[in-house]
Amino acid sequence: MQAVPDLAETTAPALDESLSAEIAQLMQPGAARMRTHGPEAAELWDEAVAALAGGKRIRPRLLVETYDALAPEGAAPAPRALALRVAATLEILHVALLLHDDVIDGDLTRRGRDNLIGSLHRRTAARDDEHSLHRARSAAILVGDLLLALTHQSLARLPLATARRTSLLDLLDDALCETVAGEFLDVSLADGALDPDVSTVLEMTRSKTAAYSVELPLRWAAVLADADPATGWALARVGRHVGLAYQLQDDALSVFGDAACHGKDPFSDLREGKETAIIAYARTTGAWEGIRRHLGAPDLTEEQALTLQRLLVDCGARRHVEALTAIEMRAARALLADGALPVRARPVLDRLLDRLEDRAA
Amino acid sequence: MQAVPDLAETTAPALDESLSAEIAQLMQPGAARMRTHGPEAAELWDEAVAALAGGKRIRPRLLVETYDALAPEGAAPAPRALALRVAATLEILHVALLLHDDVIDGDLTRRGRDNLIGSLHRRTAARDDEHSLHRARSAAILVGDLLLALTHQSLARLPLATARRTSLLDLLDDALCETVAGEFLDVSLADGALDPDVSTVLEMTRSKTAAYSVELPLRWAAVLADADPATGWALARVGRHVGLAYQLQDDALSVFGDAACHGKDPFSDLREGKETAIIAYARTTGAWEGIRRHLGAPDLTEEQALTLQRLLVDCGARRHVEALTAIEMRAARALLADGALPVRARPVLDRLLDRLEDRAA
Repeated sequence: MQAVPDLAETTAPALDESLSAEIAQLMQPGAARMRTHGPEAAELWDEAVAALAGGKRIRPRLLVETYDALAPEGAAPAPRALALRVAATLEILHVALLLHDDVIDGDLTRRGRDNLIGSLHRRTAARDDEHSLHRARSAAILVGDLLLALTHQSLARLPLATARRTSLLDLLDDALCETVAGEFLDVSLADGALDPDVSTVLEMTRSKTAAYSVELPLRWAAVLADADPATGWALARVGRHVGLAYQLQDDALSVFGDAACHGKDPFSDLREGKETAIIAYARTTGAWEGIRRHLGAPDLTEEQALTLQRLLVDCGARRHVEALTAIEMRAARALLADGALPVRARPVLDRLLDRLEDRAA
Repeated sequence: MQAVPDLAETTAPALDESLSAEIAQLMQPGAARMRTHGPEAAELWDEAVAALAGGKRIRPRLLVETYDALAPEGAAPAPRALALRVAATLEILHVALLLHDDVIDGDLTRRGRDNLIGSLHRRTAARDDEHSLHRARSAAILVGDLLLALTHQSLARLPLATARRTSLLDLLDDALCETVAGEFLDVSLADGALDPDVSTVLEMTRSKTAAYSVELPLRWAAVLADADPATGWALARVGRHVGLAYQLQDDALSVFGDAACHGKDPFSDLREGKETAIIAYARTTGAWEGIRRHLGAPDLTEEQALTLQRLLVDCGARRHVEALTAIEMRAARALLADGALPVRARPVLDRLLDRLEDRAA
């Protein structure tokens, strides 16, 4: 099977290096501060640095690409160096949210590798399993707090006029509230406090990930490039559709994709019984009784997982979610064709949509 | 037994009303945002508002009192309204830290009442105990994130010159790093990853609470009042001593004080086996074998708790920690007598120390 194309593969490696340098610079003062508080605090910060290494950096790349497209037509764009700094800040926010999400989900891995919790736990598990895990989870809460604080500290110190800095802060506030609302919906679904109908699951999916992953980078880019307000709104609308399409696809790839390509634990979503649109749809079909028997079993065998996959295909759940994804993609394309975005910005979004379509293939 | 005097009892009720009004105003935009995301998000925000109600508000009061004392002599003090806003922000930070601390400690109560976790859990526990608790704990992580973000949003938007706003942000950064370092020491001690010697426990005690509870309000007040830098440094030094004295006392009152007065669950620290300087000292004595037998037993009886109390008194642990507290108080008094603080600021700190001494009595 062919590898799923990386969403960001067309981006120059130079951008990745610049982002790494920016992230390193933003993390520098914290390193100095934490080292004054002894080896445990220094260890905590080292874990934060490690959590920020690697990753595809889809979000910050989207921000910089959009800024680059919009800035030449902006009235008074902020310097590109600041766009890079805000992009690095976005990656720090992303990791902060992932850490708290991993605590909430009880996950020890992410993308097939130890996450911060797994890494700390592995180092001390020999001593006492339960205490080692508690310490590792507590560390993830605390590192998430430090990175969430750093996200805000970075924005608060941007050398921009008050109005523009405030716009960036407003957008962060919006995105964080929506993400938290989505995460709480997810928890409420997982813990059985809410009925998992398709529309609730779609709202959760959009809020939890799409808001800060796609809409926020596009809108931050528009503010930094000093694009006119209509462009910001158009990007927000396109971003909502693209963001939902991306996340629906991500959920589908996790269940049906090739683990060697997407890099996740194969079947981990099925083993955890993760509430996705696929599952919400399957619940409305006659196949549900057969599906629920295995879904969410921590000791799911490969054979059972393959059975689950087949049932989810046969009941139409896969087709349904692929259709939902296609609707969101078409809505985004229609907005682009509508001419609401400046000419130079369209190719950035078109490329993103092309890559999403390749990825779904 | 006479009630323990409230640390803040001499403060005018008008200040408490002003602080409540400021907190309400800071929480207002979040309420509007969260309500757009449906009833679950609105519930989350209501819980945040409830977590901010009540409390003694020692920290914001100390900030405003110090500002009031310093501002008349400051070169260009910020308006008092901004000092109130920063004071309200400090209370929001305090509650954010408490929420994550409660998740880490697994606590369902605080000061003898349901905390956010206990309150949410109680409302849904009938359905499914384990899931209800997981949802409530996840909510506490998420509300803590929102309040930590709000702390930074509030500072970032202060209508002050960049240099002064940056000073306030720097102090927040310092305090948060130190608090996280202290919290991680606490977790590492509780989970047995660190030897609980007295000096490590004292460092933990100072970092986890004293830094943001006393040093931060004093230093923020100095910046807002535009006091000279020497005053800021002197307040930092006094604050470190007072903060440690306060926390040592708090630990002693939790173990030896009258529960009807301090309002905590009687014996909860003994039942949880909380690592305090009292316990760290007791560990070095011959009484330790008798103490460890009951310490940390979730089902500790009142009789066993009274035995523990007696053992901790007889082995000298209480005396030792009271002596440590007295050393910190004397160090703070000596700095005040030294004349490093402006004349008008001394009574604020003197009154605080007087109240601490009454409280210890």
